[in-house]
Amino acid sequence: MDDLFHSRVRPFSVGSPMTAAQLLDAMGGTAFQARNVAQAARIWSRMLEDDVVIMFGLAGALVPAGMRRVIVYLIENRLIDVLVSTGANLFHDVYETLGKFHFQGSPESDDHELGRRRINRFYDVLAPESDFSAAEEFITQLSYTLDRTHPYTTREYFRTVGEALMPVAEEEGILTAAARHGVPVYSPALGDSVHGLAIAFGRARSDTAGPQQAPPVLFDVIGDVLETAHIAATAPATAVIYVGGGTPKNFIQQAEVGGYIFQRELPGHKYAVQITMDQPQWGGLSGCTFEEAQSWRKIAPDATTVTVNVEATVALPLIVSALAEGSADVIKKRRSPAISFDGMPGAWRRDGGSS
Amino acid sequence: MDDLFHSRVRPFSVGSPMTAAQLLDAMGGTAFQARNVAQAARIWSRMLEDDVVIMFGLAGALVPAGMRRVIVYLIENRLIDVLVSTGANLFHDVYETLGKFHFQGSPESDDHELGRRRINRFYDVLAPESDFSAAEEFITQLSYTLDRTHPYTTREYFRTVGEALMPVAEEEGILTAAARHGVPVYSPALGDSVHGLAIAFGRARSDTAGPQQAPPVLFDVIGDVLETAHIAATAPATAVIYVGGGTPKNFIQQAEVGGYIFQRELPGHKYAVQITMDQPQWGGLSGCTFEEAQSWRKIAPDATTVTVNVEATVALPLIVSALAEGSADVIKKRRSPAISFDGMPGAWRRDGGSS
Amino acid sequence: MDDLFHSRVRPFSVGSPMTAAQLLDAMGGTAFQARNVAQAARIWSRMLEDDVVIMFGLAGALVPAGMRRVIVYLIENRLIDVLVSTGANLFHDVYETLGKFHFQGSPESDDHELGRRRINRFYDVLAPESDFSAAEEFITQLSYTLDRTHPYTTREYFRTVGEALMPVAEEEGILTAAARHGVPVYSPALGDSVHGLAIAFGRARSDTAGPQQAPPVLFDVIGDVLETAHIAATAPATAVIYVGGGTPKNFIQQAEVGGYIFQRELPGHKYAVQITMDQPQWGGLSGCTFEEAQSWRKIAPDATTVTVNVEATVALPLIVSALAEGSADVIKKRRSPAISFDGMPGAWRRDGGSS
Amino acid sequence: MDDLFHSRVRPFSVGSPMTAAQLLDAMGGTAFQARNVAQAARIWSRMLEDDVVIMFGLAGALVPAGMRRVIVYLIENRLIDVLVSTGANLFHDVYETLGKFHFQGSPESDDHELGRRRINRFYDVLAPESDFSAAEEFITQLSYTLDRTHPYTTREYFRTVGEALMPVAEEEGILTAAARHGVPVYSPALGDSVHGLAIAFGRARSDTAGPQQAPPVLFDVIGDVLETAHIAATAPATAVIYVGGGTPKNFIQQAEVGGYIFQRELPGHKYAVQITMDQPQWGGLSGCTFEEAQSWRKIAPDATTVTVNVEATVALPLIVSALAEGSADVIKKRRSPAISFDGMPGAWRRDGGSS
Repeated sequence: MDDLFHSRVRPFSVGSPMTAAQLLDAMGGTAFQARNVAQAARIWSRMLEDDVVIMFGLAGALVPAGMRRVIVYLIENRLIDVLVSTGANLFHDVYETLGKFHFQGSPESDDHELGRRRINRFYDVLAPESDFSAAEEFITQLSYTLDRTHPYTTREYFRTVGEALMPVAEEEGILTAAARHGVPVYSPALGDSVHGLAIAFGRARSDTAGPQQAPPVLFDVIGDVLETAHIAATAPATAVIYVGGGTPKNFIQQAEVGGYIFQRELPGHKYAVQITMDQPQWGGLSGCTFEEAQSWRKIAPDATTVTVNVEATVALPLIVSALAEGSADVIKKRRSPAISFDGMPGAWRRDGGSS
Repeated sequence: MDDLFHSRVRPFSVGSPMTAAQLLDAMGGTAFQARNVAQAARIWSRMLEDDVVIMFGLAGALVPAGMRRVIVYLIENRLIDVLVSTGANLFHDVYETLGKFHFQGSPESDDHELGRRRINRFYDVLAPESDFSAAEEFITQLSYTLDRTHPYTTREYFRTVGEALMPVAEEEGILTAAARHGVPVYSPALGDSVHGLAIAFGRARSDTAGPQQAPPVLFDVIGDVLETAHIAATAPATAVIYVGGGTPKNFIQQAEVGGYIFQRELPGHKYAVQITMDQPQWGGLSGCTFEEAQSWRKIAPDATTVTVNVEATVALPLIVSALAEGSADVIKKRRSPAISFDGMPGAWRRDGGSS
Repeated sequence: MDDLFHSRVRPFSVGSPMTAAQLLDAMGGTAFQARNVAQAARIWSRMLEDDVVIMFGLAGALVPAGMRRVIVYLIENRLIDVLVSTGANLFHDVYETLGKFHFQGSPESDDHELGRRRINRFYDVLAPESDFSAAEEFITQLSYTLDRTHPYTTREYFRTVGEALMPVAEEEGILTAAARHGVPVYSPALGDSVHGLAIAFGRARSDTAGPQQAPPVLFDVIGDVLETAHIAATAPATAVIYVGGGTPKNFIQQAEVGGYIFQRELPGHKYAVQITMDQPQWGGLSGCTFEEAQSWRKIAPDATTVTVNVEATVALPLIVSALAEGSADVIKKRRSPAISFDGMPGAWRRDGGSS
Repeated sequence: MDDLFHSRVRPFSVGSPMTAAQLLDAMGGTAFQARNVAQAARIWSRMLEDDVVIMFGLAGALVPAGMRRVIVYLIENRLIDVLVSTGANLFHDVYETLGKFHFQGSPESDDHELGRRRINRFYDVLAPESDFSAAEEFITQLSYTLDRTHPYTTREYFRTVGEALMPVAEEEGILTAAARHGVPVYSPALGDSVHGLAIAFGRARSDTAGPQQAPPVLFDVIGDVLETAHIAATAPATAVIYVGGGTPKNFIQQAEVGGYIFQRELPGHKYAVQITMDQPQWGGLSGCTFEEAQSWRKIAPDATTVTVNVEATVALPLIVSALAEGSADVIKKRRSPAISFDGMPGAWRRDGGSS
């Protein structure tokens, strides 16, 4: 038998009820995207057994789409060690943590009517603006309490938000879980979200209410760059999981290149999984292959990688359910590498002065 | 509570092991494509409880991709009543039924080397040409035995192939199961496949071997049109499931319009599910919406429909597994409507003469 | 300068008015799909200078979308030698040749209202069913005049339709131009279109009107396979251009493999251009790469190829306009290879008997 | 003639050489994406005649892909009034302005070899890391000269970069042209790019070279939110053009909602064009329709909008070339609305103190 023919396609058989882990095992014997979904679970499981920091990039409107508890599961059970997401997901997390809901609508809705009634649509999901306002006001009020003498990295900001939410949370969310479990959360375009709007609103309001006494709240976006590069530079090795592209993917990719900030040349991420509907042929970073990333040395030449072209609301629950079931022992035993910014050059500590 | 807000998004929770039916039930509470996958299973289940003929269109290289036994399951358990597929899938079915295999390869293969070694690639699936030859020769030999006095509809041809395979089958396949269970199989572009090539080869060979005495085997492609329109025209109602687009989708869609052949105006298909990665904005039939089809009256104005934009190797096993589990009773009880061509105007019967 | 760096990206400059040929020349200095569009024109121009039979596959609803005259230009000026298309495009060609029109609508139309008013929608194009009926009736009436003693290849059928249209044509169309200029036209799924419906209607009507005296009109779909394989086998070399995927692409691809019908092993198509929005990762033939096709030896190992991922209503007019302008001399001088079926094994001639 | 049938499809005719404006005019008579491309040029032309601030969002690797001079043209001729882009495009602009080049490569490159040779790939574009280093060092050196007593909005930062480039520029670029012509440039995820890396590198380096005396350079990302909302709130009306999705699109979309920061409720953008390959059905902001945006009141209910699903390297040069030619008078006459931040609540002026 030829070397090319070591692995037969095993046709998927419908029979007695199958669990998530069984479904993915059966899909792993087939082809196309089913095989990729199965491969993603296998690679993630291998990450969990290895000594690597797992960085997770989350783009897309996945919290409104009902994926918030999946992310909470990932944090609580430490299937991921660092979260990078859009401000939007981290706003909708606040919203749901405060007990507000998203609703099932239709992509064929009458958007003029929705606009008149102040109901916002995300494809087939709806939410009333009036409920958003409560969450926005929470953020605006919180912004008044922030330290104005030092800028916040987005990690510091989101930990503060998570802690502020704990006493009022209706249920555990991404930011509360991350704060509780010490998982750093970054958002490279914080201003580009309701977090940014709500803080800007607070700033303009306090300004118009009278002369602004203190400097406004500031965010140390370069501090984010330093910290994520430091995480990559000090990790035993790194693994990445991207759900969608955008700034979360790019930001984690560049963390590996950023080793040079600390005079280190890093080997590239050791494992890489992406779940995306973006395609390479449009030329952008969101859809680019991990092969392309190897030319940048963001991904190690011998990395184990897979790209899954299945929309994330399907792929992510399947993969995480299969891991929770089939890799339960691995998850339980995992000791995730410590993340520390002690002695990081360029650090600007909240407790006073640079390092 | 507003009428728009009757249904909250229920975030997907990872917890104890979930079966396919449970996974789809949980996905049904979310959004985007997960919700569509769940909706597809629900609509299919409703088809099974209703008095409808279920027509199934299958495009794409899904047999090489390991989906053959799923289709066999659909036929054996009568989740579908009519199958329309590409000649390619129905050739690869013959190939696997004869005990030949497909293999897992890589989309990044060296295709020049594969070409030199005569190994054919289908994305990440491989198969050796030498094994194809055996299946081709089976078809060529069968073609010599066909009746040359009357043309075959593709349904008659595939039933004949299925019956010819039965004694030599290594395992049950699509065509053997369809022949055994009386499920008609059509392929509107029969020539456009190895079936066509193998029969053409037989015709050229017999010709060069000496003067051709008999007329060649003929296919009554207009008979296919009549029969499928007749099925639609005489069914209590029709339901359609499309995996991919292409001729299978168009052919089943037009069957409903084709009622006019028999002076009947049909109401449009009553249920419609499609699993496709094609998009509407390229303008073609493969990606078109069921709304567009309603302008053609191919789909009933009040039809229950869903479009699932998840690649079929993931969506189809999930949906069928969930149905096999969650709708087991419905499947067991189903009595599919009888399909008969007796008295069909324009029929040209194999047993002699037109009707 | 490194060998990898022989060709700088030349940024596109907006300045004085540019013609199609100039636009494509400038795009050729850039990247992504603009570079591919330019490359497609260059490869097509090279085909025209070489001694090759150019086979053109046309899928998608491009005639309703206003591309009919572009195809007519290709036929009249012999930028293509063989046309393979869907029955739908070749029906809408009859429709427009008979002086009927398509109209600009909106993809957001109310399809229920359209359905009630019997207006059919193709994405953003509309047409009234009543006008279709005239074209359908033309085909039905024509079908009564066809020779019932021998089956028609689709080439013979479409030539007959083209000739029948000439006296009544409001303007030159695809089928009239093809008949006039001797360009063979094939449609591997003829039944899967209004051609099929209209002929089936004629058959059922004559049947119900009384006992059917003669056998019905038959189509020799295996003859199509033989003929296209024969074209490939007897051509000095072949080039292919695919607009969309589907049966036109597959049928032309298999023609090269089909050389084995005549005991010939062909080298694979020498040039290959495809304009498509289908993607490889769904595993189907429509979206597959030309690299994949090289594993099948459908495309020559040293072929010159390009895939253009730009929707065809944009890419095709651009490319053909640029060729008409920039390759005018090449077009004028071209002598296309002769296509003949004389002595083709397996032929079944209209003039009596097989060869 | 029915109201639905006021506009016939005008088939595209290939004939005498056509210019960009003529090509788009002809495409405007057709369908699918060709019609959308033409419509985009028409809507853009109407923006130029109206009294609106035109905000332009640019995502994707379009500067490496050769689109930089098109953007420069837009700035110099004031076809746009505000630019929001990714840090990556604005880094590659610095790179090209400093006389460095991108090169044409292949998407099928051997990325392991590229990685070893330190050549970075962007789909089919290549660039040597060594040349990147020069541009990075330019930014790092510039960062040492920045004012550390006040944070920079990204607009202030990019104006400073543009001015610093002017004396050393090999040719006019996006940032030099924007600085020269007073077009504000924002980048909502500045850290997520080589700008961020190069500044972080400078910060860590100065830190390790000895105790950091001064606070590091800071960016006022909330100031960006205030400013863009202020632009929207004080404009006579706004128009938006998005090339790709990502943070540029979202940031401009939210500017309209952000009117509430200044106690204003804005009517939604009045004109909206997007050129994107992202699709709505994945649920994210990048691919969402302008209809969905109307539910958020980001787009006015009566706005004139179009979505073009053609990759930007093809669509953008076509549209801008057609405007430069066909709307030359409109462009020449245009007086773009003044943009000023005087009296903006929440402002924190570089010249000392908040407003």
